[in-house]
Amino acid sequence: MTKPDDNTPTPVASAHAVRSEAVSGNQLIYAPVAEATADIGVIGLAVMGENLILNMASKGFTVAAFNRTTSKVDDFVVGRAKGLSILGADDLPTFISLLKKPRKVMLMIKAGPAVDTFIDMITPLLDEGDIIIDGGNTHFPDTVRREKALAEKNILFVGAGVSGGEEGALTGPSIMPGGNAKAWPEVGPIFQKIAAQVGGQPCCDWVGEGGAGHFVKMVHNGIEYADMQMISEAYSLLSGALGLSAPEIGQIFDEWNKGELDSYLIEITAEILRKVDDETGKPMVDVILDTAGQKGTGKWTSVTALDVGAPANTIAEAVFARILSALKDQRVAASKVLRGPDAVDAPDKDIFVEQVRQALYASKICSYAQGFQMMELAAAEYGWKLNFGSVAQMWRGGCIIRAAFLDKIKAAFDQNGELPNLLLDSYFTDAVGSAQGAWRQVVAAAALRGVWAPAFSSALAYYDGYRSERLSANILQAQRDYFGAHTYERVDKPRGEFFHTNWTGRGGSTSSSTYNA
Amino acid sequence: MTKPDDNTPTPVASAHAVRSEAVSGNQLIYAPVAEATADIGVIGLAVMGENLILNMASKGFTVAAFNRTTSKVDDFVVGRAKGLSILGADDLPTFISLLKKPRKVMLMIKAGPAVDTFIDMITPLLDEGDIIIDGGNTHFPDTVRREKALAEKNILFVGAGVSGGEEGALTGPSIMPGGNAKAWPEVGPIFQKIAAQVGGQPCCDWVGEGGAGHFVKMVHNGIEYADMQMISEAYSLLSGALGLSAPEIGQIFDEWNKGELDSYLIEITAEILRKVDDETGKPMVDVILDTAGQKGTGKWTSVTALDVGAPANTIAEAVFARILSALKDQRVAASKVLRGPDAVDAPDKDIFVEQVRQALYASKICSYAQGFQMMELAAAEYGWKLNFGSVAQMWRGGCIIRAAFLDKIKAAFDQNGELPNLLLDSYFTDAVGSAQGAWRQVVAAAALRGVWAPAFSSALAYYDGYRSERLSANILQAQRDYFGAHTYERVDKPRGEFFHTNWTGRGGSTSSSTYNA
Repeated sequence: MTKPDDNTPTPVASAHAVRSEAVSGNQLIYAPVAEATADIGVIGLAVMGENLILNMASKGFTVAAFNRTTSKVDDFVVGRAKGLSILGADDLPTFISLLKKPRKVMLMIKAGPAVDTFIDMITPLLDEGDIIIDGGNTHFPDTVRREKALAEKNILFVGAGVSGGEEGALTGPSIMPGGNAKAWPEVGPIFQKIAAQVGGQPCCDWVGEGGAGHFVKMVHNGIEYADMQMISEAYSLLSGALGLSAPEIGQIFDEWNKGELDSYLIEITAEILRKVDDETGKPMVDVILDTAGQKGTGKWTSVTALDVGAPANTIAEAVFARILSALKDQRVAASKVLRGPDAVDAPDKDIFVEQVRQALYASKICSYAQGFQMMELAAAEYGWKLNFGSVAQMWRGGCIIRAAFLDKIKAAFDQNGELPNLLLDSYFTDAVGSAQGAWRQVVAAAALRGVWAPAFSSALAYYDGYRSERLSANILQAQRDYFGAHTYERVDKPRGEFFHTNWTGRGGSTSSSTYNA
Repeated sequence: MTKPDDNTPTPVASAHAVRSEAVSGNQLIYAPVAEATADIGVIGLAVMGENLILNMASKGFTVAAFNRTTSKVDDFVVGRAKGLSILGADDLPTFISLLKKPRKVMLMIKAGPAVDTFIDMITPLLDEGDIIIDGGNTHFPDTVRREKALAEKNILFVGAGVSGGEEGALTGPSIMPGGNAKAWPEVGPIFQKIAAQVGGQPCCDWVGEGGAGHFVKMVHNGIEYADMQMISEAYSLLSGALGLSAPEIGQIFDEWNKGELDSYLIEITAEILRKVDDETGKPMVDVILDTAGQKGTGKWTSVTALDVGAPANTIAEAVFARILSALKDQRVAASKVLRGPDAVDAPDKDIFVEQVRQALYASKICSYAQGFQMMELAAAEYGWKLNFGSVAQMWRGGCIIRAAFLDKIKAAFDQNGELPNLLLDSYFTDAVGSAQGAWRQVVAAAALRGVWAPAFSSALAYYDGYRSERLSANILQAQRDYFGAHTYERVDKPRGEFFHTNWTGRGGSTSSSTYNA
């Protein structure tokens, strides 16, 4: 490892390492092909890759850098990496030769087939026991597959979720690594040093086997979707019911950020709401089109929830909310035809603002409860051992959903690693129990006033459903038995005994064995 | 075609056609191997297959029957099929030899690998231009694949959704066939004759190319999930807020069934609610456990909605509701810990019952709107031409979601085949517009009273979102641009122009090109 404060470049001419035209006249750092001095190598010099390399270098690591379009290597080395312990390489053999053994190659490239392509290209250059890390936003089943295939070649594969956007990558992201556990003693010291640090602990720990790292990152993103949607609903309610302006709401969010809601997303939303558009002088958010894009991780989370049988309805509502936002033209047309409710008087400002705050907090707790419940169900399904306290710590800093209340989540799971639902931890039981009155008022107000608040209301439905000893699913099961002979269980008989009623007196005792309507 | 009223059996001894031990002493109908007299052949003698065969025979068709476990063929022929124009076969070559050309083989077997197995077994026995129909609950991508593969061999493949449960199969189901259009003139006359008839029209029409038939059936099931969930929520509200008993609610449903809500599911729910348990003397629904099973079609619908970008949040909520219902043990434990709202006085009975009725109707309209919107988006995605009026007609009878108001849906799409959303048809615009006041009261009441009503509230959120010219997604998009440089569009610039703000004054103008947080 080179010393972090020793910025003296070590220029070594190596025609093999860089293009000659790039060398001439520049103060580049080159490593000789034969000398393996880099602690880790990173492939992919988009903004996340570059920033992660700069982060590593700033923490004292020597980093080899490679990019498929090699001019980006040259630009980086003479640009942002200038004078730092960063070694550019313009071909893969050189890049690999720069790495200390066991070699650690981190891919910071677009998730998908390119990852397989690079794995195929570098694997022949590696030795047994070397490590490949995929730091992209990979769908976890791909990581499961790759880890397994590479393990057969004794290459240790790690799928590491990295969150925090470009700024996090530079200054300390949340890193969620999983895969081949033999890699952890090698990559752990690097990742835990470059990760965000909160309360003296790194926001990085070993997540688990197979695709567990990317899975946890995916759930993080699903929760992020819900968090963002809920914040936007709070904005809608304050704007719609109270008629507050963007900067006024920004000021409220600033206040909120001092309490239970203290979080990165509340903080930046306050900043966003205060920002003025240079061109029009209006609040920036008032000129931004109301169509939200998405890159698929929220969708993956929702689909996986359906797959593992996790009731993550609020996360799914947040995904559908983005989908609905994208149908802008239809909405504009519909707004001219479909009626809303009659006008209602504005509520008392101070009371309503506080109610919305409590509704946001309670809803947020439910979406986290859904995310953790989903991780528990998935861990059982996929055979992973996940440490939920450690997941909460990883999300405590660096990532987009970082928030003060993750300390409480960590404490809850540290105290009871088998906690089936976050809501059952006494802190959260009390928090939601206290907030529920206000929360119910806000969901009712949204319905009565015609304000769109799908995440708030679905979170409340989740809460009311989860706390119901008895739901109305008996009606569903009776219907299913009526038309499809799907059978039912009885409240007065042991679970696992199935009964069928001949509801109509026609039919018979047929049970729907191979065909299901 | 044999005459339907000619029930004289034509016993023909054929050792090849049936097992000799089954023949001896029985009055079986056998066809000689060489004589192809059957209009269609059905493979799979579970209850749906048997009932469909009996239906076909009752409409005058001669049907060949085969089952992998051939004893079922024997049982069927001497049992329910006795004296009817049904020919049993105990091996596939015999079965195929019974069929008139072009041969029509319908699979009524469990969806999945067994379908491929049977296709592989019968294809070598068929000639070009022969037809295979899969009448199972197949996931539509499998139908797309099979239709394509068989078209290369000039075998015409049809994926036909069949709904109506065992009773519908016997007396007239809804049939939704799609696939190779060349098969339609051959199978159409049979399917349209055995299908339910409503208003003088069959509940069967050609749906479209590829997997369109099974796709439409899948959406039918998704809507069915939502319908069932909403009915159970209406029950919950009447039971929870008014304290009504099961038979009292059954009586209300009977009344409802005379009006706009007239439908099979309301009808059978009324019957179900009146049913008394022989063992305990209690209402049947009170002894049925509140855990609803599912076979996956609702999940498929939700996943497909996410895939094609359709805002089908209410259908997804219905799936998550079943998932939550299945977590019975967790709910029982949670009910002892998590607090509900303070007690609220019961509302006025007559007013509340009518409000719930209107809420159910408006919510139902929204879930159908979501289903049809999803079909439009999927048709565009998969390159199918779907006739939505005809889909409504197919669902008008025979199937589980059959309902009077499908006439109105048919009329809406007959009038405007390009209608982007059912809510924009004047009948439905007015229906929801009139119901919305009551609907909002009910959703508010559910929130305030702690009654679980995720489908009602998500349907209202869908309505309020869809009719919003401007949603709060501008906040989301600003957040995404802030932390991930994902850019945004402006309200005062043409669509397709993307902007990035340097929100913090740090960062820079980097855009998130290959990595997305």
